[in-house]
Amino acid sequence: MHKPLLAVLKGDHAVSPPIWMMRQAGRYLPEYREVREKAGSFLDLCFNPELAAEVTLQPLRRFGFDGAILFSDILVVPHALGQTVTFEAGEGPRLDPLGDAAGLSRLTEALDPSVVGKVYEAVARIKEQLPATTTLIGFCGAPWTVATYMVAGRGGDEQVAARLFAYRDPEGFSRLIDLIVEASISYLLGQIRAGVEVVQIFDTWAGVLPNAQFAKWSVEPIGRIVTGVRAVAPHIPVIVFPKGAGHRLAAIVSGTGADAVGLDWTADAGFITHEVLPHVAVQGNVDPIALLAGGDALDQAVDTVLRSYGGGRLIFNLGHGILPPTPIAHVEQMVRRVRSWRTVQ
Amino acid sequence: MHKPLLAVLKGDHAVSPPIWMMRQAGRYLPEYREVREKAGSFLDLCFNPELAAEVTLQPLRRFGFDGAILFSDILVVPHALGQTVTFEAGEGPRLDPLGDAAGLSRLTEALDPSVVGKVYEAVARIKEQLPATTTLIGFCGAPWTVATYMVAGRGGDEQVAARLFAYRDPEGFSRLIDLIVEASISYLLGQIRAGVEVVQIFDTWAGVLPNAQFAKWSVEPIGRIVTGVRAVAPHIPVIVFPKGAGHRLAAIVSGTGADAVGLDWTADAGFITHEVLPHVAVQGNVDPIALLAGGDALDQAVDTVLRSYGGGRLIFNLGHGILPPTPIAHVEQMVRRVRSWRTVQ
Repeated sequence: MHKPLLAVLKGDHAVSPPIWMMRQAGRYLPEYREVREKAGSFLDLCFNPELAAEVTLQPLRRFGFDGAILFSDILVVPHALGQTVTFEAGEGPRLDPLGDAAGLSRLTEALDPSVVGKVYEAVARIKEQLPATTTLIGFCGAPWTVATYMVAGRGGDEQVAARLFAYRDPEGFSRLIDLIVEASISYLLGQIRAGVEVVQIFDTWAGVLPNAQFAKWSVEPIGRIVTGVRAVAPHIPVIVFPKGAGHRLAAIVSGTGADAVGLDWTADAGFITHEVLPHVAVQGNVDPIALLAGGDALDQAVDTVLRSYGGGRLIFNLGHGILPPTPIAHVEQMVRRVRSWRTVQ
Repeated sequence: MHKPLLAVLKGDHAVSPPIWMMRQAGRYLPEYREVREKAGSFLDLCFNPELAAEVTLQPLRRFGFDGAILFSDILVVPHALGQTVTFEAGEGPRLDPLGDAAGLSRLTEALDPSVVGKVYEAVARIKEQLPATTTLIGFCGAPWTVATYMVAGRGGDEQVAARLFAYRDPEGFSRLIDLIVEASISYLLGQIRAGVEVVQIFDTWAGVLPNAQFAKWSVEPIGRIVTGVRAVAPHIPVIVFPKGAGHRLAAIVSGTGADAVGLDWTADAGFITHEVLPHVAVQGNVDPIALLAGGDALDQAVDTVLRSYGGGRLIFNLGHGILPPTPIAHVEQMVRRVRSWRTVQ
């Protein structure tokens, strides 16, 4: 069966771009909120294979997306390395912060199989029920982004704690990054064995790094993950999403071996068209606030993405996750507009 | 008397770059904290000409900086337009949010002279006591950044409220921007009449805008402020600091008429050297976290800035404001290193 999203990642130029949305399994859907209430905490839902599979599949039923992304969280990796993660209602994640290199001794060397096993089981369940033309996407956080949460114990504050650790003790910080790299390779390969057909690496906080540190803490470790995954699973495409990278996307393209890059909503279309799209597929990049706004603003945002990248290998998506208050009718409006668009060949 | 900072802005290539720091009058200084305690709230200090002058001058006494920046806040403009601003201890600023275009009716057309008059009086007092070689810098927020606080009533949350307003009602949002543009011209000219020799426009949230909106809400309104100021005060250099702009700095350079641009700590040195430095002076861009870290990391960060831009018109600075926990010894280390550096001509 033809899978349009997978085909674009493997080199096809689609006449009509495949589409999915970051955080498409989420709080903007009433059927998600219903399952979430049943499940208990956010992590309880992540580690409940039956319910995680259910919420992964929900947006496909409504919108017929070309991609399904495993319902999970980038902090599963630290959790499975022994750094317990909790989510308070209305707050972000909380971890017992590592602080500095001494904190590394609290981590295990390998992922706890009883933790990641539940994620792999969710993947297998999703795969069983996946529509034949839909591509299943697994994911992990990039080492830099995951490290920022592990060091500070939470997000926000411009990742000051991890940046400070990396400046003060680059060797100690390297050991943390190395640990996350190895764990991420293992984690992605586990997802692949369970059935995912594509993996995406989220570097949500890549943008805060100065150039030299961007090369060292974002590009290089992601490249090692891509290499590690490819050594075992050479046919699985890898998408890298370095949010806020701007023109440093060029370094991600040349330095990581990614098959595709995610574009946030601030990407410069001229630069992407000339420097990125000739080399890899691109995924993005409607401003989630335009989707929230709807109306003409949304149509214009959709058309800008289609006109800018639709002639190349484009996977239509948002530039970041959909926001909880987004009306479902706006998603329907966007999907209709993308589906009715055809490249003029 | 020769003023090195002013000279670089007017076209000089300095052998040793002039230096100042964003937020140099601030909580990292014990003498600032002492005055701040006496003054009452943060805004009480801003509107106390004697004490605002005192804290503006404090860092010059310690570090001999080439620039003094008026101690004030970008939210003085909404405050003087009738949208009362308060600062809670440990929180950011709070305003009664405008929400949408209907909220504009609550604003006055012109700045309340009893509010901005205190700022101008502070400028005059600083000028009286200013060391002969120091350049006095006034400032305002860019219309986009000021609007994000006015619409949401606070910072944070990726400026969702203003972005949503601008998408849903671009005409109404334009009226808000126009109002801020006019008020900012008047405010900067008032500061100039009182004695500032340079003005800086801070667009702290420029980076969250998609490209089309960046042109419309950041570049164009800043350009109108520059034109408006220059019409009356043609000899006053203007520095524009669009944080997070990345390569879109090129649009700021070509579209606003700025004499200099501020670089945040993520700037791409190759791009700046080729596309920016030939046209304007640059100001920046040591990572404030490297300053907080100190040691080798700080020396390396300082040297990177000097080597990257020191051959051109460089004003040495941080890539964003100094953080409150920064040790004074680290500032001294940075200043010594910059002062001892000479361009190889």
